[in-house]
Amino acid sequence: MQIILLSGGSGKRLWPLSNDIWSKQFIKLFKDKDGNYESMVHRVYHQILSANPDAKVTIATSHTQVSAIRNQLGDAVSICVEPCRRDTFPAIALAAAYLHDEKGVDKNECVVVCPVDPYVDGSYYEAVNKLEALVHQGTANLTLVGIEPTVPSKKYGYIIPESRESVSPVKEFKEKPDREKAEQYISQGALWNAGVFAFRLGYMLDKAHSMLDFSDYRDLYSQYDTLTKISFDYAVVEKETRIQVLRYAGEWRDVGSWNMMSEVMADKSKGNVTLDETCENVNAVNELDIPILIMGCKDMVVAASTDGILVSDKERSGQMKPYVEAISTDVHFAEKSYGTYTVIDAQPGSLTIKNVLRAGHKMSYHWHEHKDEVWTIVSGRGKTIVDGMEQIVRPGDVVTIAAGCKHMIIAETNLSLIEVQIGKELSLRDKNVCDTGALAKEGL
Amino acid sequence: MQIILLSGGSGKRLWPLSNDIWSKQFIKLFKDKDGNYESMVHRVYHQILSANPDAKVTIATSHTQVSAIRNQLGDAVSICVEPCRRDTFPAIALAAAYLHDEKGVDKNECVVVCPVDPYVDGSYYEAVNKLEALVHQGTANLTLVGIEPTVPSKKYGYIIPESRESVSPVKEFKEKPDREKAEQYISQGALWNAGVFAFRLGYMLDKAHSMLDFSDYRDLYSQYDTLTKISFDYAVVEKETRIQVLRYAGEWRDVGSWNMMSEVMADKSKGNVTLDETCENVNAVNELDIPILIMGCKDMVVAASTDGILVSDKERSGQMKPYVEAISTDVHFAEKSYGTYTVIDAQPGSLTIKNVLRAGHKMSYHWHEHKDEVWTIVSGRGKTIVDGMEQIVRPGDVVTIAAGCKHMIIAETNLSLIEVQIGKELSLRDKNVCDTGALAKEGL
Repeated sequence: MQIILLSGGSGKRLWPLSNDIWSKQFIKLFKDKDGNYESMVHRVYHQILSANPDAKVTIATSHTQVSAIRNQLGDAVSICVEPCRRDTFPAIALAAAYLHDEKGVDKNECVVVCPVDPYVDGSYYEAVNKLEALVHQGTANLTLVGIEPTVPSKKYGYIIPESRESVSPVKEFKEKPDREKAEQYISQGALWNAGVFAFRLGYMLDKAHSMLDFSDYRDLYSQYDTLTKISFDYAVVEKETRIQVLRYAGEWRDVGSWNMMSEVMADKSKGNVTLDETCENVNAVNELDIPILIMGCKDMVVAASTDGILVSDKERSGQMKPYVEAISTDVHFAEKSYGTYTVIDAQPGSLTIKNVLRAGHKMSYHWHEHKDEVWTIVSGRGKTIVDGMEQIVRPGDVVTIAAGCKHMIIAETNLSLIEVQIGKELSLRDKNVCDTGALAKEGL
Repeated sequence: MQIILLSGGSGKRLWPLSNDIWSKQFIKLFKDKDGNYESMVHRVYHQILSANPDAKVTIATSHTQVSAIRNQLGDAVSICVEPCRRDTFPAIALAAAYLHDEKGVDKNECVVVCPVDPYVDGSYYEAVNKLEALVHQGTANLTLVGIEPTVPSKKYGYIIPESRESVSPVKEFKEKPDREKAEQYISQGALWNAGVFAFRLGYMLDKAHSMLDFSDYRDLYSQYDTLTKISFDYAVVEKETRIQVLRYAGEWRDVGSWNMMSEVMADKSKGNVTLDETCENVNAVNELDIPILIMGCKDMVVAASTDGILVSDKERSGQMKPYVEAISTDVHFAEKSYGTYTVIDAQPGSLTIKNVLRAGHKMSYHWHEHKDEVWTIVSGRGKTIVDGMEQIVRPGDVVTIAAGCKHMIIAETNLSLIEVQIGKELSLRDKNVCDTGALAKEGL
């Protein structure tokens, strides 16, 4: 069985811990069985493999998430990179082509598409496993998972099944309703649409080829930015007549707001946080080095990162989007292929950054057009290359890199360096990665 | 008239904006008549001079506050530096000796001792001005200001006067009472003890010489660390029989907690703060560069600095002391003679600091035993001296300073530099200031 995990867009709903390039699925607020903090993507990946060790997981995502996924899940997981964001139908079409054309997956194999963000228990992926047999029975082209509603929620789409059987043909779909309608749907046995779809790979390839003009995966990839944004629900699901749904009644929570995240996060607080004994129902996450003291608060969430600080009533936190959008969106933290990048000071004309590299990892060989850099190694051992010159570096060593100089660092041990950027324009976009042959040309 | 302003101890009651070396009287949350933010010490100093342009002000304080006072009030104000903290009797004795022995003030002159921290309006210092005439009348050795109580507070000492006249002999003093006793005192016409004492300079010198064994100011200064800690109230006021009190009924507030500060601060929020429209009675101060978003909160104070973040119910904020004491007390911000010093990153073995120098100011010529430093100039122009070698510096220039090297920087314009310290022990105490002749010896 093939699983396509949709690792979706940039989210601001868990600001300041999520931002344009650091989506909520990477925030480590859960715990694995050994008590170590883990993220949603880590949790889901291991839940899938624990329910079915033979499942083959491919993560469909944008290139901005690749480093975070590799850092959290390692090199074994398969990643299908979307060149840009084009909603779920093009994403699933691309992933299907990737599985067939790049991975050689047979058209008869069962593929299950799952979103990466619900908080569920193990029984959910046991339900997902049942989809394979249902797909191979051939009674439907598409098999969905429907969640037994716990409240008449206005936040989800509803699936109306023909019957209340465990597996039932779908009668119709309903958009996010008001409360009254939701109650009415539920009285008819309606289920929440969890965004889980199972099908034969061949079914999806046929759909893709019938709706998009492409020859194979590489062709689709190369024209991806010209595709129209359209959801899988709209393009495929709502038009399909041979469609059925599997009921699921176990734990399933959407952690799309701090209010919901606070219900499932492993610890009431994480990081350097002091809650006085008069606090009630307060959750706090502190990714900064400085302490947070919270006193006499009730029903609140406090979250701090290098991007900003949120102090909010839990209920109210769901309304945060327009406020966050109005706040400056400078990204102060990013997961890189080599480790992490944190802006620790920003002034007109300069930016100071803490770079932490993991042992054995390296930056790409690159250069900037408009900025000079000064690196001071503060811990660890490594090697820098600047315009072809190699230098062993240790704490206290300084490397100055003028605009136009090609440069990189290779961490021998875990290594930390303070980088000061100087220039009139300090854009993240001013980065030119050298061709793969550049080092060889320099005899390295 | 001489005024001794007691600029008291390190305060944690307005943490994280006040710390061991940055007392609450330096936090700029008030506004002057031109709408510029000003601190309590700035406000009080100008209120005194506005009520009496001929008043001579001497600030009695510890050496840790001298830079902040000079930066905020300029070089004209007189400062009597206590070598260490020994409570108010030794501090006032030292200031009295300073006025007489160093400044040549006549023993018959009126001296008024005022704490620096009450928030008052102009009429308060008009009352203070009246003390001079009362002192010269000679009907008492000590004249106090008593504040008409507005509530039966448990936080202040009470003065019981003989009569309800505007000026009355003092009958007795009462320690901080419980609420019931406070009500009883107030029904007898009692006043809050504001810590304001007026006397002839000669009176105080006699008291000092009778209780402490010293010849003159310099002698007292040199043995200051051997003096017993004792308050002026206990050592002098409560033993004096010829003592009177002047009633004051205008505005007088102790801003010793965030709850009280929030009542008098000029703006509801300061710094990069967004309050959503559902917030009620929330005050926020953000000294960090990152944004704070506050949603759905009520009756709260939020304060953030490089030392930490406070999120507290206003009432509850008065109970913060034990919690703050339990939190790590690393100081991340300091006002220096040259400008400001802010720790922006701390790791084992390294410390990264943003130094901001004002035009025309300089660091002292100094060296460190155990740490190397790397300076990167990020804005402005100046000159560094390292082991006698001068160098003109501009943005992008790097200066490396090995342990043991003498070094300094002189800012020609406003100048900002990022300093990376490397070493196994990174103590603020590892700083050795060179003799005044050191530069001359190097021919500079």
